[in-house]
Amino acid sequence: MRILGLDPGTRQFGWGVIDARGSRAVRVDSGCIRLGDGPLCARMLVIGDRLGEIIAKLAPMRASVESLFHARNSQSALKLGHARGVALYCISRAGLEFSEFTPAEIKKSVTNNGRADKRQVAAMVTMVLGLGEMPGADEADALAAALCCANRLPSERALKQGSAG
Amino acid sequence: MRILGLDPGTRQFGWGVIDARGSRAVRVDSGCIRLGDGPLCARMLVIGDRLGEIIAKLAPMRASVESLFHARNSQSALKLGHARGVALYCISRAGLEFSEFTPAEIKKSVTNNGRADKRQVAAMVTMVLGLGEMPGADEADALAAALCCANRLPSERALKQGSAG
Repeated sequence: MRILGLDPGTRQFGWGVIDARGSRAVRVDSGCIRLGDGPLCARMLVIGDRLGEIIAKLAPMRASVESLFHARNSQSALKLGHARGVALYCISRAGLEFSEFTPAEIKKSVTNNGRADKRQVAAMVTMVLGLGEMPGADEADALAAALCCANRLPSERALKQGSAG
Repeated sequence: MRILGLDPGTRQFGWGVIDARGSRAVRVDSGCIRLGDGPLCARMLVIGDRLGEIIAKLAPMRASVESLFHARNSQSALKLGHARGVALYCISRAGLEFSEFTPAEIKKSVTNNGRADKRQVAAMVTMVLGLGEMPGADEADALAAALCCANRLPSERALKQGSAG
């Protein structure tokens, strides 16, 4: 199962694609879209175009994003919402399955500690995926969202088979 | 000048296109995209697809949207941001000029009162555009954003010509 993880932001937008096979996962590609501080309108175009390219090139079947959470204040929530809205639009447009997880679920799934800090998440992502060097925080968070989704898939499937049987 | 006004929302998304000629303006078309309460991801797709159709069919040159403002709380700001982000993406993708105005600027421009209520705005929009019946609040707010942009254009142009001369 190829999974796209996203960490939406209006200045830096992390993304990561992994292939999950049973209990193993490998990184296909990952990165961070740097958006600078130009007009918000122009930044949305960069996000939408770049995500469109990534999805077209790497063909994930499923996308995973951190769920809605309470931001510091309504102004930063509004901006974050812009980036997340464009991400959800790109995911829907491409027909990907969509999963969202709370920050605590992602941290718990990847580090076994729901209150892990960013550095612990990045270190664990680096180890689990056998990366040569530790990715930046946004890229690591995106890969963590994808890994959390991969870890949850077997139990989701078992649940569906159980309820179908 | 053909102008698209938008009033983004995650349940109802108002839109209106006007033709502004000197001090006169006429409505080309307007409406409200009803989004219900399904998954946010699916609603973003409806917004993006519908706005894409409206822009392709009516070919506005410019878009006008209410500027970022402080929402009731960070949760509603985050949701509103989703809808506004997809709107900005569609505007950028189509290469439209983009203007944003504060709620007070739009109210002041349309009703001459920066603190007008929704009903006063809708009544004035109905009168100025000579509509047969009063549009709903979201549709009226979208048309008001377009009208505000039309009212501001002559002064923006004079300013540019002044600074160029």
